[in-house]
Amino acid sequence: MSIQYILEIVGTFAFAISGALAMKDQKHQDWFGASFTAFISSIGGGTLRDILLDSYPLVWISDITIIYAIMAGILVTFIFYKFLLNLRKTLFLFDTCGIALFTIVGTEKALNLGVRPEIAAIMGIFSAIMGGVIRDVMTNEIPIIYRKEVYATACFAGACCYLLLDNLGASRNVAFISASLLIIVIRILAVRYEWTVPRFFR
Amino acid sequence: MSIQYILEIVGTFAFAISGALAMKDQKHQDWFGASFTAFISSIGGGTLRDILLDSYPLVWISDITIIYAIMAGILVTFIFYKFLLNLRKTLFLFDTCGIALFTIVGTEKALNLGVRPEIAAIMGIFSAIMGGVIRDVMTNEIPIIYRKEVYATACFAGACCYLLLDNLGASRNVAFISASLLIIVIRILAVRYEWTVPRFFR
Amino acid sequence: MSIQYILEIVGTFAFAISGALAMKDQKHQDWFGASFTAFISSIGGGTLRDILLDSYPLVWISDITIIYAIMAGILVTFIFYKFLLNLRKTLFLFDTCGIALFTIVGTEKALNLGVRPEIAAIMGIFSAIMGGVIRDVMTNEIPIIYRKEVYATACFAGACCYLLLDNLGASRNVAFISASLLIIVIRILAVRYEWTVPRFFR
Repeated sequence: MSIQYILEIVGTFAFAISGALAMKDQKHQDWFGASFTAFISSIGGGTLRDILLDSYPLVWISDITIIYAIMAGILVTFIFYKFLLNLRKTLFLFDTCGIALFTIVGTEKALNLGVRPEIAAIMGIFSAIMGGVIRDVMTNEIPIIYRKEVYATACFAGACCYLLLDNLGASRNVAFISASLLIIVIRILAVRYEWTVPRFFR
Repeated sequence: MSIQYILEIVGTFAFAISGALAMKDQKHQDWFGASFTAFISSIGGGTLRDILLDSYPLVWISDITIIYAIMAGILVTFIFYKFLLNLRKTLFLFDTCGIALFTIVGTEKALNLGVRPEIAAIMGIFSAIMGGVIRDVMTNEIPIIYRKEVYATACFAGACCYLLLDNLGASRNVAFISASLLIIVIRILAVRYEWTVPRFFR
Repeated sequence: MSIQYILEIVGTFAFAISGALAMKDQKHQDWFGASFTAFISSIGGGTLRDILLDSYPLVWISDITIIYAIMAGILVTFIFYKFLLNLRKTLFLFDTCGIALFTIVGTEKALNLGVRPEIAAIMGIFSAIMGGVIRDVMTNEIPIIYRKEVYATACFAGACCYLLLDNLGASRNVAFISASLLIIVIRILAVRYEWTVPRFFR
């Protein structure tokens, strides 16, 4: 079991928690709705990436551990949600680490399947954000990427950083860790100092 | 022509009717919108299942009868909709039989493609509900699974029942019929006695 | 480089512009959101068609020119949007030519993959309209097909015209140009004379 695999399972678990918690303020919420939302949030991005790249079987279909990680996330949310809601900062850090990890894993996977770097960056961003986008579309929210302005943009910067370092011949671990840290740092600074992406229409 | 094939065609026809009728209260509705909605409602769930499982060609692409069953459903809705709207109970029964059938057919198909039972259950539920979810997302409604509380949960119970009986060595017909009946009975009782799934956040 | 290839690139460019401009009236808009929306609008329809038909690799993954055409559309919108908003009639013409082209290219591609004419027509319509539908669903708008009534219907007429001429043994160019013109003419007349598709429920 590689460190990366453990991180991916932890990332899926964290995404399931944030997915289930997203149902908190919905008028209609029950066990099924919360579980479904947690599931979609966790696997949506990677699933879309793999469908676009024709990479089968899908990760969560061939590796049942993913499903159990999601179930654990749902259960933990159910039992500890009052506690979790007081941990907003910790959750934010978990979510940020999750999107950083998913971006780089997604970029790398696409690259290994032989696509061009531009496409690999798109796949990395999709892996990280599309689960949340699908969740928001399903619950009739404005998708996260239109709200939290420096969110997908941080993923974009991280994917570019990874591709650049990879191109410059950096070792895979150096590229992986640097790019992930870049995403985490950008998002923390963005929230701390209320950075926004420039408006498109002035 | 097996009984199951005939049932699937009837199920598709029923889903097309309920899809077209869903446009009744939309501000904007016309022939194209109603047909499109009927089509998406009927084939959405099975299509998503087959894409996730990489099972090609898609059923409605290789078997044109599906398309004609949907067209028939649209035409019947157009001609008889006033009559149909008075038949709410009959329609409810049709829809319930439809989701029961689609759940078990979906579970079985996934199982035959060699996935684990947990994944097969997810695929069964997706087959039954995702057409309605996609329809609701497209028409800006809160998806059905967040509203009708014991809807997807009935499908879940039916899929588990099928997998259990299959595992215990029951004949395929016994498993199929028992699991379908379970879904139908749960949904009828749920509507009759206003059962709800327990809230996730208390 | 065939004329059709150049037209497809121009069509993608035009769709990217109309996708980015669709963010104009959104409360939340920034560089990332506008670029993402332009991207989804341009490639959504063709991507869905290719996934449904299991036709891989996806066009924009194997041909990077598509990505650059989209980027050019985003940049042109950013620089010239005030000018573009005064060009509503020109943009309408561009968009109409875009959907005409995408409909016929999509129908033809499906036909070449060996599906039945009915399915090819559905694929042609999907190629033209689903990018806009996905964009509208993501930005919480009522999808375009429910609003602009003679929009998808024009695509449907064009696809049928192409299939009919093809069946009658017309040369491919004759069928292509006639069917495209039919879509363009229907849409222009529909907007000019406020044609609407008959209501489904009277």
